[in-house]
Parts: sequence; C-alpha cells; structure tokens
Amino acid sequence: MEITKPTLLLNKEIALRNIANMVRKAKELNLEFRPHFKTHQSAEIGEWYKAAGVKKITVSSLTMANYFADFGWNDITIALSINILQIPEINELANRIKLNVLIENKEGLEALQQNISWHTGVFIKIDTGYNRTGIEANRTPLIDQLLEMIQKSPLLQFKGFLSHTGHTYQANSTHDIFSRHFDALLKMKALKARYLSEWPELMISLGDTPSCSICDNFDGVDEIRPGNFVFYDLMQNKLGVCKLSDIAVRMICPVIAVHSSRNEVVIYGGGVHFAKDSIVNIDGKPLFGRIIIRQGDQEILLDEKNYMHALSQEHGILRITPRDLNYFKPGMLIEILPVHSCMTANAMKEYLTSEGEIIKMMPDF
Amino acid sequence: MEITKPTLLLNKEIALRNIANMVRKAKELNLEFRPHFKTHQSAEIGEWYKAAGVKKITVSSLTMANYFADFGWNDITIALSINILQIPEINELANRIKLNVLIENKEGLEALQQNISWHTGVFIKIDTGYNRTGIEANRTPLIDQLLEMIQKSPLLQFKGFLSHTGHTYQANSTHDIFSRHFDALLKMKALKARYLSEWPELMISLGDTPSCSICDNFDGVDEIRPGNFVFYDLMQNKLGVCKLSDIAVRMICPVIAVHSSRNEVVIYGGGVHFAKDSIVNIDGKPLFGRIIIRQGDQEILLDEKNYMHALSQEHGILRITPRDLNYFKPGMLIEILPVHSCMTANAMKEYLTSEGEIIKMMPDF
Repeated sequence: MEITKPTLLLNKEIALRNIANMVRKAKELNLEFRPHFKTHQSAEIGEWYKAAGVKKITVSSLTMANYFADFGWNDITIALSINILQIPEINELANRIKLNVLIENKEGLEALQQNISWHTGVFIKIDTGYNRTGIEANRTPLIDQLLEMIQKSPLLQFKGFLSHTGHTYQANSTHDIFSRHFDALLKMKALKARYLSEWPELMISLGDTPSCSICDNFDGVDEIRPGNFVFYDLMQNKLGVCKLSDIAVRMICPVIAVHSSRNEVVIYGGGVHFAKDSIVNIDGKPLFGRIIIRQGDQEILLDEKNYMHALSQEHGILRITPRDLNYFKPGMLIEILPVHSCMTANAMKEYLTSEGEIIKMMPDF
Repeated sequence: MEITKPTLLLNKEIALRNIANMVRKAKELNLEFRPHFKTHQSAEIGEWYKAAGVKKITVSSLTMANYFADFGWNDITIALSINILQIPEINELANRIKLNVLIENKEGLEALQQNISWHTGVFIKIDTGYNRTGIEANRTPLIDQLLEMIQKSPLLQFKGFLSHTGHTYQANSTHDIFSRHFDALLKMKALKARYLSEWPELMISLGDTPSCSICDNFDGVDEIRPGNFVFYDLMQNKLGVCKLSDIAVRMICPVIAVHSSRNEVVIYGGGVHFAKDSIVNIDGKPLFGRIIIRQGDQEILLDEKNYMHALSQEHGILRITPRDLNYFKPGMLIEILPVHSCMTANAMKEYLTSEGEIIKMMPDF
C-alpha cells in the first residue's frame, strides 16, 4: 500500500512481544491478567491477546464493552465508575456476558440495585492517590455501608476492590513509580485484610502500565489490568518504563515544507491525527513526538534537539537543527514516535500493520 | 432522544445566525466568502451555508475536499500547502470540480506541473507572521520564480496570494487582533500592488475567525475564509471575539461522582470526547471547559471558579466551589462549553441538534 497521508503504523512483532511479556509476568507472579483494551480498541488486536491465552478484559466504556462482547469476549470489567444513565443498557449486557461494574457512591449502587435484573459483578473503586475517581481507602464507614447494601442484593456479587494508580504517570523517576505503587499496594492490602474474612472471594485489582512493567512486588494483588503496554509510547519511555525499541506504533507523515530560515519543518499530521498530549523535552518545552528518518533499510532516530514542538488541526511543526535539516525535503515521508499511543490510536481509528494489513478500530464511542 | 453519554449538542438557531452574520458582513465589505468547512466537517451543515448563498468553500484536506465534492460543492480551495504525495488524487478531483491548491515552494510546484492534467487554480501561500506555513511576504525573488514557473504551465492558473493570520489566536487583547490583522493586510496589499499589473485577476485571500468577526478594515482583500465562527467557543470568547451566547455547541455529559472532600466532580466525558485544548483561567491554571447547569427551563452558567480543570481519556474533572457543589449529583446531566469547537467536533464525529436531529460528520480523514 502506498502511503500518501498521515498513517498509524503498527509493528505487529513488537506488539506481540509486549503482550507475551506481560502474559508471562502475570503468570510468574500468579496474577490474573485482565488487560485494558481502551488502548487499541480493536477486535482484531483482541485476537492477538486471545492467542496468548487471555480470556477476560477491561474496557473504559459501555460502547466498548458491547463492541468486544460482539466479538466473543464474555468476561468484561467496565473500569469507569458506573454511569447511572446507562444502567438499562448495562443490564442488557449483563444478560449476555459475565460483566463487572465499578461503584464508588451510594447513588450509583442504589440505581444499580433498583434497575438490574441479571447477575452482575461489583467492584468498589478505591482511590489510592490518583485523586480522580474512587473512595479513599481509609473511608471504611462508607465502604461498610456499600457492602451492606450489596449484601442485600442477590443479583449483585461483590468482586473486590479495584484501583487505578494513575499517578504513576506523573512520576519523576522509576523510584517514584515504585513508591507510588507500593503505597497503593499497602492501602489495598489493608482493605483486603479487613474484609477478607467476611468476603473470602474478594479480589484486589490493580495495575497500570508503569507499575506492571517495572515493579515485581504485587503482594496481595489478585488481578492486573494494564493497557498501554501493548504499544507503549514516549511518555512511558520518559518514565523509564520501556525502551524506545518497545514502542509498537509510529505515525508516518508527509513533509510539506522545509523552512530553513527558522529551522522548522512542516508535516501533514496535526492534532486530529496525533491528539495533543505532550511531555517536557530536554529544553523544557513541550514535545509532541520524536522523529525517525528512514534511508533505505536504515532507520535514523534524530536526537531530542529535533522534535515535533507544535500541533495545529492538520499540521505538525518540527524544530530541526541546522545540521539535520538536510534530511528533509517536501514530499518525503518521515516517522514520528507518539507521546501517548492510546490517544493517537483513538484519533486515527485504524492501523496499518508492518505486514501491510489495515486493522480497524471500533467505529464510535 | 434520551441522552445517556457524552453528546455534542448543536444549537441550530445560533449557528444559522452566525452564518447569516458572516455572509452579511462579507457582502457589506464586498468580499468573496469562502468559509472553511474543517470546523463542522458535515454535508448537512454545508446545506445551511448553501441556503445562505454560499457557493465556494475551503477545506483542510483532500479527503475533506472529496467528501464535499460528493455533496455538490464544485469550487473548493484546499488550504493546506500541497502534499506532493497526493497529487495523483488531487488531479482526479481537479477533473471533477474547480479546485484551488496552495504552494509555498518549488518542489511542490514542480511536482504539480509534472503530474497535473486538468486545470487547477494555484494560490501562493504567504506567511504574514503566524510562522507555520508559507513564504514570508518580503521574499519576492522566490515569489518571482514561482510565478515564472506557473506562467509556463498552461494548466495552472495563478489565483493570487493566500494567508492565514493564525497568530490572532494568540492575541492578548482585541487591540492585538486588530494590529496583527492590519499588519497582515499591509503585507498582502504590498504583494498585490507589486504583482497586480502583471496578474490583473490575482486575489488576496485572508481571514481567520478573530479578524473576520471584529475587524472592519479589509482594504485590498478579495476573499475571506473563516471557519470557526459557525460555532465559536471559549477560546474565541476569551479573545473578545464572540459573546458566550454566540457559542453554538455544547457537550452534554453525565455526572459520575461528587467528591466534596476535594471540591471536585467527575464526569463521563474526557480527552476522546473534548480533545485537549485549554485556555488559561483566571487562577492561571488550564481550563478545559465552563459549566452550565440546567434546572427546568432555567440555565445557570457557573462562574469561572467552577470549571473543567483536567481531562483523562474518558473522564473530565471539574473543580467546584463548596457553595456550588450542591448543584451536582451522580446521574444528572450537565453541559460544558468547549474551549476549541473545531477539535471537539472532530473528536465527537456527530451532532445532536436543538431540534433533536442527529447530524453526522465525514467518516474519516
């Protein structure tokens, strides 16, 4: 296939290796593996997990749960605290598959109790420090109340406590990741210790990509749910979580113009293609992608003085050192390593694999 | 229709008024009006322009040009400097409609000359200070060379000089917008004065939403191409370009959780729905949206101490003052004014109009 416009290239070999590594790690640590599918959002890539033995998954919306249920996934956790307005549709899905939902307040649980007519698993969402969603682990009076309510609902099965240690993404070092993960671990273990006798089957579900990639202590944890690891990206690389060679996706973009007067190159490929997440570059400025030049079979990763420094709707602007400007000319294709692969994939909606195959993502939200 | 998940609401009446105002202004100033359709990307909204007398349009990609050509638009400017790799497809489109492309370097023009077999209009892209794409207006030796090349191609028709004064979006005051627009005007007029005798039909095409909305001096300009004005957004409002009541789009989002301990509310609606553009709020922090509460027929716009302050993939986090926390409870719907309507619309891919109709956008890039 001839590439003429921004295209998301997926290296299947790297993705399969990333999946295999995480499957092996979960097995070694005796953890259930319920990968998050919001990163790739694709039935076909889902098959790669199936081939690696994965049987249960995590998703971030009901739409995504329905999509994957249609492709035969029958054990799904929707890892977004329950949206009361969608309970009728959640109920329909609970009739079709083994479904787990998350609750973090009485309103959500009450609405669930009143409107559900099929067996549904319930995790209580715990906030271990990310401060986005969930109940702080020390608010046991509220947790007690919720458990009491769950106990009265024969259709609701308490599954355990679930947390997303998303603040590992804001870590300043791998040490920081270890310590945030360990802190989350302590909080979740304390909950397990407190409630295990009454709920002997309760699970602790934890595990973002940074901690699942580099931490080895999952004491007390029963299940991990990383997602990003299948592709990784520059953000994970900057965190020290993956090597650049572990990144499975790249954008291929045409060069539109070379502006040597201001050391810039303009590419076709902007916010609608990459999304707009950035990390801080060595010069303290936002970096939206790193640049790879292909010359024949050779790949040249330009150093960090060369990077995508701005994005408008359809354009990307590369800052290029005078020395490296010679690599660029209008009409050539270059490759860009993305900062946040989940968001870039979501924007692009399809992949071109290293084997020349087009893989579609789910069509809408 | 019952709304249960993030939904982009479009107030048709406001959009029609915004279109009518810009049509009238262009007429009063004797300017050709070639609105940019990248903001709405929808054939059906295109019909609203047609009904207002609009006959020619601007788009930001070849895909978008093909999409609108399929819906009867036969005079289109692709306002992205030419992508050499797509010239074969550009040639096909030039056979179907009156097509204008942009060039800004010899490589692009040469490739066009060698591969085009149908009449095609050519604008030279001028950089009037935005420093994204285009030739600086004082580089007349390069412009001379390009014009000489165009003259030798019987299929290429020189249309004139085109610029996007995108730096009006970075203005700190309306005065700043006036001065940046005026500066662009002077540069374009100088080019017109220099080349008009040789090219008596050359046009000056200018006009971003900020300058087209508030400036009245378009001396020497022949055509304007604003796009965002159809919806406007918080960014335009902050620039002093529109009133809040001119904003035609809102996101409707379900409330997931109320965290009174940290004065936060979590909504279902994140980066995949809003995209991630932000403006600086009165407290110096990034603002991703302002909040409207609906109580019966009454609309309450919360003040700027209440705002969406963070976005992850599927969640939005609202910072809410203790006083206003009472408005929120899980399971209710709230409305959010978006920061950048073009990017939010592009992320959502469809609208729900105030008349209850679903309007689809073009399916892919």
